Amino acid sequence: MKRDVCTINDLTNEEIEEIFDLADRFLAEMGKPERPHQIGGRRSDAAGQVMTSLFYEPSTRTRFSFEAAMVRLGGSVLGTVDPVTSSAAKGESLADTVRVMENYADLIVMRHPYEGAARAAAEYVDIPVINGGDGGHEHPTQTLCDLFTLRRENRTLKDLNVLLVGDLKNGRTVHSLVYGLARFKANIIPMPAKGFELPEHVGRRLQEEYHHHPYAKEALFGGEKDLPPIDVVYVAPDSELNLSAQGQAAAGDDGTERKKRPLEFDVCYVTRLQGERLAPGQKLGTDYPVIDSKFLRGRRYRDTRVLHPLPRVNELGYDPTPIRAASTSSRRLMACRCAWP
Amino acid sequence: MKRDVCTINDLTNEEIEEIFDLADRFLAEMGKPERPHQIGGRRSDAAGQVMTSLFYEPSTRTRFSFEAAMVRLGGSVLGTVDPVTSSAAKGESLADTVRVMENYADLIVMRHPYEGAARAAAEYVDIPVINGGDGGHEHPTQTLCDLFTLRRENRTLKDLNVLLVGDLKNGRTVHSLVYGLARFKANIIPMPAKGFELPEHVGRRLQEEYHHHPYAKEALFGGEKDLPPIDVVYVAPDSELNLSAQGQAAAGDDGTERKKRPLEFDVCYVTRLQGERLAPGQKLGTDYPVIDSKFLRGRRYRDTRVLHPLPRVNELGYDPTPIRAASTSSRRLMACRCAWP
Amino acid sequence: MKRDVCTINDLTNEEIEEIFDLADRFLAEMGKPERPHQIGGRRSDAAGQVMTSLFYEPSTRTRFSFEAAMVRLGGSVLGTVDPVTSSAAKGESLADTVRVMENYADLIVMRHPYEGAARAAAEYVDIPVINGGDGGHEHPTQTLCDLFTLRRENRTLKDLNVLLVGDLKNGRTVHSLVYGLARFKANIIPMPAKGFELPEHVGRRLQEEYHHHPYAKEALFGGEKDLPPIDVVYVAPDSELNLSAQGQAAAGDDGTERKKRPLEFDVCYVTRLQGERLAPGQKLGTDYPVIDSKFLRGRRYRDTRVLHPLPRVNELGYDPTPIRAASTSSRRLMACRCAWP
Repeated sequence: MKRDVCTINDLTNEEIEEIFDLADRFLAEMGKPERPHQIGGRRSDAAGQVMTSLFYEPSTRTRFSFEAAMVRLGGSVLGTVDPVTSSAAKGESLADTVRVMENYADLIVMRHPYEGAARAAAEYVDIPVINGGDGGHEHPTQTLCDLFTLRRENRTLKDLNVLLVGDLKNGRTVHSLVYGLARFKANIIPMPAKGFELPEHVGRRLQEEYHHHPYAKEALFGGEKDLPPIDVVYVAPDSELNLSAQGQAAAGDDGTERKKRPLEFDVCYVTRLQGERLAPGQKLGTDYPVIDSKFLRGRRYRDTRVLHPLPRVNELGYDPTPIRAASTSSRRLMACRCAWP
Repeated sequence: MKRDVCTINDLTNEEIEEIFDLADRFLAEMGKPERPHQIGGRRSDAAGQVMTSLFYEPSTRTRFSFEAAMVRLGGSVLGTVDPVTSSAAKGESLADTVRVMENYADLIVMRHPYEGAARAAAEYVDIPVINGGDGGHEHPTQTLCDLFTLRRENRTLKDLNVLLVGDLKNGRTVHSLVYGLARFKANIIPMPAKGFELPEHVGRRLQEEYHHHPYAKEALFGGEKDLPPIDVVYVAPDSELNLSAQGQAAAGDDGTERKKRPLEFDVCYVTRLQGERLAPGQKLGTDYPVIDSKFLRGRRYRDTRVLHPLPRVNELGYDPTPIRAASTSSRRLMACRCAWP
Repeated sequence: MKRDVCTINDLTNEEIEEIFDLADRFLAEMGKPERPHQIGGRRSDAAGQVMTSLFYEPSTRTRFSFEAAMVRLGGSVLGTVDPVTSSAAKGESLADTVRVMENYADLIVMRHPYEGAARAAAEYVDIPVINGGDGGHEHPTQTLCDLFTLRRENRTLKDLNVLLVGDLKNGRTVHSLVYGLARFKANIIPMPAKGFELPEHVGRRLQEEYHHHPYAKEALFGGEKDLPPIDVVYVAPDSELNLSAQGQAAAGDDGTERKKRPLEFDVCYVTRLQGERLAPGQKLGTDYPVIDSKFLRGRRYRDTRVLHPLPRVNELGYDPTPIRAASTSSRRLMACRCAWP
């Protein structure tokens, strides 16, 4: 039976870990000696396989990452569709388009402006469909990249403290990432731009479905100064995070005292304001958070990895220190895309 | 000496049959087990060969089908030209463009808005040129697909009763198909939308060059009810079709009685209204024929295959029964494109 | 250490000769039997290598030539960027774009409207960048093609008499070519369209850096009639050109008499008026030089090769004789592109 990847929920935790193990192996075997996060050479896993990319929205990174992955695995790629010069311009339905494509290719990767388009397409064809972004909805392979990068940088996702920065309302990558992090029991700390808060239904689902517990900032930090502008910390079940403001050890489920981790930010995940999805009349204030070397000072950021799904505009500093951090992570992030599927 | 395929007449009947035999063989060898009309894997017939596609008009299906064919045969494809960002925009002649391309590629596939463009291009280069559609003129590989699909579905083209439905005036695929069908001695039954009749010169050529005889509807069917809105049936020479309205056997050329086939519709070939080629002020009436499960009822449609070159708009029903028929045929049709050249 | 080709000066004379030797070898091995200037088949030098082309400006020839070269050498190509549907449209910096691309590809080829863009990109990545044209600045691989074609046609570049015709002011290919010719000690004879003269700084650099000596037309030709509308001849150091109007032998550096070549035009390099780079209000006069069979009459053109980087508009005659000359050279020129890098 064919499998599709239309949302991150099409994969179980076990399958995600398997994909990551495979990607690790590809990186170990194909990584360039001096730049181990970059993949070189060509395997033959996908020899004789043909991928087609149907991109109805702008994309460089996503499209090229899939093409590169397919080519590095030994397969071939059919040129992408230009929405303007395609049959869609003659009024063809998506169903008819993909039904024809399945006669040419073994795999469809699709980006589409409408939510649910990839899922709909998947139902019309017998070959796998991978969602490369459907409107403001999902972007599951971006989430896989993010999780994979975090796992490589930190060895585990469990109990990672992830600061989510910027536009947490519109970004399709962020919502998928929140659920992905929750599934692997990371702790989630939203730091939204004003007016771009995480939607309430996302917070609710974090609690009800994933059993994350929301701690108010004051409960965790007391009157501590120099904290980032956050309100709440969603703590994973069974977290080893030290939840007392005073840093004392707490009793575990089994009644014994356990060594607790202090709340340091392992990851700072920065997102761009999606200007093209602003409501009419809505304006970006001057208070959109900027992550730079100044922001990253202090004991809570001693080992922080900065990630950004790109493209970045101005929300990530261009000063040397954080750029190095960011670009390293971003590069690794992109490399992992190469390794997938 | 190089060969071009600029019109369907660049190939003899024997060559067309050879191509079909080859495509049959490819399908048998490369067809996917559960979907034998779909081709998988990769051969090496075209290893080391490079195709370039010069598409000066919108296309998804045709362009991708050629790319897929080339890749499945082991060859490579150069990215297509975007008419807007190409040298044509700087005023270059077609002759200069193709003369340069022949230094890069071993084969040119071209779509162009002007009639005869592919033929003109072919005269400037020493490598083969295949016409992927030139204005309202010809689309020979579409015709090959159609004929191949009909042959696969019905074993032979001879004496097939083909109902041609819709815009028989503007569709470039239809005129090529009419002559292709005539060459293989199928019987042709036009059922045009009002105002989109088969041009007179096509009917005349059917009679003069291919010796098809036009029977008026009344002569064939008498007062029979429940017939589709047709006027004439172009019957191939030596047809075994039962031409008497009463269904009696008729004497053959050799004077003996032969078993005659009743007039059932083996094929219903539906075309879209080519809105973009309407004359200014010309409007599409509400009486454009729609082929759906209701239309296909009755004893004359017991074994009818519905074909459509796509894209379809509304002229083909979306209700389950005919869709299944249509999409199966269409898929097979597309698969055959994959097998060619 | 990685190497980039952003300007022709990124390569030493020795390296250029090495590349030409390699291209000669490719042509000998891969040239089609009946059209030895065309390359066929596929090598495996670049097996497993992936090229990406970032073209932010229109191109057919350059882009396809690089794609064809990569494919003929056994490598793969990622589909090109459409500037309109790319991340650049979302405000991404060139630095971020290329840093991501280096995770996908082993080589970047770039065309960009801004001068210096390729060099800037090269500084951000660890993989080689080849400049496919940056604004009105440089187009180094075009220069390599031109020099290679001249070498093949004339066996050596030294002392070739090259007539440069047309728009010598705006053409990015011409300035690179002038310096390339100078490095290999060709003699350079500008024949500009009125108002499109070679910039003064180019002439100065020819003298100061490459030690070419400018001879006034009268000094060389006396009152000879039937000369092309030229003003000056830049003669290479140690030239064996006969510099006396009377054709007498002159004394060499070592004081002995040497056999001197008369001033015949070995090459006529024709360029198109770059209409898109005209200053506002600037008009093309009716006196733009046209090279055709009439122009090429006379004893000084007995063995002239006509080259044109294409696209041509009207500055190169379409009458049979010169067309043959031109298209042969141009084809060869393009073939050499195929062989490179």
